[in-house]
Formats: sequence, structure tokens, C-alpha cells
Amino acid sequence: MDLYVGVDLGGTNLHAAIADADGRIVAERTEPTLSHEGPPGVLMRMARLVHQLAETAGRRPVACGVGVPGFLNLAAGTTKFLPNLPTNWIDVPVREMLAAQIGCPVFLLNDVRTATLGELVFGHGRQANTMAFFSIGTGIGGGIVVDGKLRLGPVGAAGELGHQIILPDGPRCGCGNRGCLETLASASAIAAEGVRLLLSGQTPKLYEIAGGDPGQVNTKTMAQAAREGDSRVAEAIVRAGQYLGIGVVNVVVTLHPDLVVVGGGAAAIGDLLFDTVRTTVQQRIGMFPADDMRIEPSLLGERAGILGAVALAIRGEQLTVRCCHLL
Amino acid sequence: MDLYVGVDLGGTNLHAAIADADGRIVAERTEPTLSHEGPPGVLMRMARLVHQLAETAGRRPVACGVGVPGFLNLAAGTTKFLPNLPTNWIDVPVREMLAAQIGCPVFLLNDVRTATLGELVFGHGRQANTMAFFSIGTGIGGGIVVDGKLRLGPVGAAGELGHQIILPDGPRCGCGNRGCLETLASASAIAAEGVRLLLSGQTPKLYEIAGGDPGQVNTKTMAQAAREGDSRVAEAIVRAGQYLGIGVVNVVVTLHPDLVVVGGGAAAIGDLLFDTVRTTVQQRIGMFPADDMRIEPSLLGERAGILGAVALAIRGEQLTVRCCHLL
Repeated sequence: MDLYVGVDLGGTNLHAAIADADGRIVAERTEPTLSHEGPPGVLMRMARLVHQLAETAGRRPVACGVGVPGFLNLAAGTTKFLPNLPTNWIDVPVREMLAAQIGCPVFLLNDVRTATLGELVFGHGRQANTMAFFSIGTGIGGGIVVDGKLRLGPVGAAGELGHQIILPDGPRCGCGNRGCLETLASASAIAAEGVRLLLSGQTPKLYEIAGGDPGQVNTKTMAQAAREGDSRVAEAIVRAGQYLGIGVVNVVVTLHPDLVVVGGGAAAIGDLLFDTVRTTVQQRIGMFPADDMRIEPSLLGERAGILGAVALAIRGEQLTVRCCHLL
Repeated sequence: MDLYVGVDLGGTNLHAAIADADGRIVAERTEPTLSHEGPPGVLMRMARLVHQLAETAGRRPVACGVGVPGFLNLAAGTTKFLPNLPTNWIDVPVREMLAAQIGCPVFLLNDVRTATLGELVFGHGRQANTMAFFSIGTGIGGGIVVDGKLRLGPVGAAGELGHQIILPDGPRCGCGNRGCLETLASASAIAAEGVRLLLSGQTPKLYEIAGGDPGQVNTKTMAQAAREGDSRVAEAIVRAGQYLGIGVVNVVVTLHPDLVVVGGGAAAIGDLLFDTVRTTVQQRIGMFPADDMRIEPSLLGERAGILGAVALAIRGEQLTVRCCHLL
């Protein structure tokens, strides 16, 4: 039985897993990325992680998929621009360097497109023809599946659903634009509003949970504070959910997917977020007939990225040169 | 040589053409829709139009395509809801009734999806893999092509690009929602702002061209006034173009088409509109790499709808039952 290894290259952690063709994880391991060491050090640590997993599994993987947080040159297997890794990742031949170190073919893909692939191959997407995936984390990433195929566009950048413009004169985004969905509904945007509320003394529960420390304000502590009665915190989450619902509407009028999946850390907020997204879509979909469309939390949860990287290892050969789609 | 007939059912006019498989029009004719007469009268007049064209061409068509302004039950060949035709078009079996009257198979499709099909089969779309079509008229309709296939979604409603939400608290839309692109950049929205400017005395040229009559204010008279020096009118067009550019950005981040086509009556505004759309997309696309994407006026212009209806007649057999896509 062939084994495949998936690596999720994150700004903070390297997360890797070795699994079979059905996505059953045999061994799994996380290490700090230590990105300040730059590409050679990070790649060396990724290779070591793969070797350790192969040792645990008792078998070498036949292929490796890597989810990378940023833009890639898919045809060349190089990184183009990784906004969340501080050192220089421009034109690093990750595919070639890593393949030489681990001794098997390596496939690269944007991290959230990778998570979308995970959801497509091993999650809710197995039942979907057309699917949109929103990953709500530090930013908002995404992925689009049409006819059961992950759509990458000519340079692998299709599916950047967090950079839809929702407020033309809204907050400045990391991408240089204004009012992107990411500026309004990402975990960072939600936490920033939580910090503002905390500092202005409007959130007794959140203050208690976070010990008064703005550094402890995040979607997890905020979700708890909302559940325990902080109405202002609940409002902040609802507002983000409404913007996210608008982002979903915009994808629905364009493509009418049968399935919208919301993943990433903020999906753990749970019902308060999902109920708001669903209600907003119902209210704002206008005369558009979309009763049949489901909006679901990721079936794979935190493992969407790593199982997507495994799926990428399995199906990476099918990446076309123009990279219009995968699978 | 087989001939095909295409009919564009408009709120004001019925426009029909008979053409060969290459889209060469043999005969063409327009008649008032007289929609107040209701479905039987309108269908009778459509059938007469087809008979007249067949007589002119000296041959009966082998199939008929009809572009319909609204939502359809594609599987049943019935109308569901036509917002711009005043009488009751709910559940009218247009496909069956018209086929019986003209003696050949009939295929129905939303009018702007039909125009998209025209552009795909006979226009700029011949060179495109993934294309978005925006039709700027009374409303804003659209269509999406992925992998050379017109995407319809499960109920034929994918591609409603005018109902993207661009301003969450914006003007009320005919669809029931607020701040849809259509409320900000349709020919009606542009004309409404022209009327406001005219009535507030800010547009000497437009006043002259329209003879002071608000009823004469439209995108055509406004484009002329802008060219002749009415800076406020030019600003109104630029503002609509900026919103349209934002609508284009939102489709680009989602799908990264290689081609965006803008058609419909307002496309005749020309450079002032297109330059604004292109500039806005360049400014607002953020770090997204989209240098290769073209934004073009429809190659078929006013005939996109009617040639799309001809294309529908030619390829209608390929409409799948679930109607996920065409061709």
C-alpha cells in the first residue's frame, strides 16, 4: 500500500502527515517553522519532518504535497511571494530542493487551495459538483471547485475569495486594495473589533476570560465571551458573519455552487457565525433560487490543510501545465 | 445547408433572425412585443415572425432558440418569473407551445446567458477558456464560461453578475436586495444620475441635447454630453465604471477568467466607460496577478442576444437535464 506525505507550511508551524490513498493518517507531526532562518533552514526542517514520519510509518512516501501560504509559479515549482513569511521567498525552487532532500516527487499549491482540495477529496466535497471554500483565519483564503475540479486559473490564483471587494471605501487590506472581505470578516478583523470593545470597557466577560490582556483576544475567547453573555462581542461576530454572508452571496450569483464550506480557525466560533451566514444569504439572495445550496463547516476541520496536502501528493501528477484546474 | 432561428424576447421588442450554422444571418426582423396582450398573443407573434423569416429565407429552420428575460424551468421548458414583462408569465410552457406553432424543436435560455453563448460561439469567446460576460442595460445581466462551457448552475441562474453586492447598505434593487451592482452601474442607474444632474442644472450640454426633457436622458445622450464637455455627466459615467470595475475584480479573484466581455446598450458609451473599468481593475486587483486578462466590448454588440439565440438553436440539444452547463 502506497503512502503519501502532506506538509502544511504555515507562518508559525510546519504540520506534516503521512497517509494512505484514502486519507487515513498513519503518522502526524508538527514543528515550529522558524521562518526567520529563511528558505534553506525551513526546507531542511521540512525534509527532516518527512524523514521522521517515514520512519514512524516504516515506509517511504511515494509523493509529497506541500500547501504554501502565498503565490507560486506552479509550472516552475517555485515560490513567488509569501506575504506571511518574513524572509525572502521570491523564486525559491521549493519543489526541486525538497524533492532532492526527500527522494520523491513534490507538488506545491497555495495553502487554502490545498485545503479546498482536501475538502473535495476527503470531505463534504465528495458529494458536490460545484463548491466554494472559504477559510477564515488571519486572512481569508478560498478555493473554487467546478464540475468536481479545483479551479486554479492560469496562475493558480483563482479562488481568492477573501479579496472580493465588499466595501469600496472600506479598510485597507494587506493586498493593497480597500474593503476586501478579509478586512471585514477575517479572524484578525474580528479580533481587532474584540480588542476595541475590550479597551472601551464594553465586554465584562471577555475581560474576565482574557484576563484584561488584548493579546488574549481572539475568535476563541470571543466566542466564549459571546456564549457567556457579552452582547457586544456577539454583535461583532454577527457583523463579521453578515459580511461573510455577503461574500457567499456574491459567489452564489456568479457560480451557484451546490455547496459552500467554511473552514479555518474562525469556523470554530460555531453556530453564532454559521447561523448568521445562513440567515444573511437567505435574506440577501434576492429573487435568486438557492434553496438547495448547503453552507457547512469543513468536515475535515483543522486537518483540511494537511489532508489536502496528502490529496495533492496523490493527485499532483494531474496538475496541468497551464494549471487551469486540478483533478 | 441547415438554417436556425433565434428569437430575443424583450420587454419592448421581439427580435428574430434566421442564420446558418456559422452565424451568418440570412434574414432578420423586429416587431413590438406588445406584452400587455399576455403570453398567448406574444407567442403567436413570435411564431408569425419565425414563419415570415422562413419565407424570406426560402427554407424552414431546423431548430429555434429563444432568449427569455428572466428565470426559467429549463428542464420543463417553462417560464418561472419574467420581471420585465407585465402580464403573468408564471409556468407558461413556452417551449412546447412555440414548438407546436413553428414545427421544430425550441430551446429556451435566460436572455443574457443567451448573449454570453453568442459571444462564446461567434464572438470574442472563441479564443477564451474562461470568460465573464456583463450586459449593461436596464439591469445588469451576465454569464460565466468555464473551460469553454456556459455555466448555468442547477437552475440556470449562475452568472447573475449584476446581483453581486457591492454596497451592503446601498440602493434597493429590483431583486429585493440592497446595493447590487445593478443598482450602481446599470444603464438605468447611470440615467437616473443624469436626470438628477439635469434637474439640478449642472449639465448645460445634456440639457441642450435632451431638449431639457428628463425622458431623453439615457446612456447615449449622456455619452454625447460627456464628450461635448459636461464634466458632471462624465463623472457620473466614471463612477458607474468604477463600480463595474469592482464587479469585474470580484469575478476575477473568484475565477480568474482570461476574458471579460462587456455588452448591452451601455457598452456603446465606449472609451470613457471601458478606460474606467480597466483602470479600476488595475488599481484594485491588489497583489493578484491578472496582467494577462483582457476586458473587451462585445464583438457582436447589439446582435449578441440574437446570435446567442441562433447558437442556442444549434447547440440546444446539448443542454443537460440538470443544466449545469451548455456545450
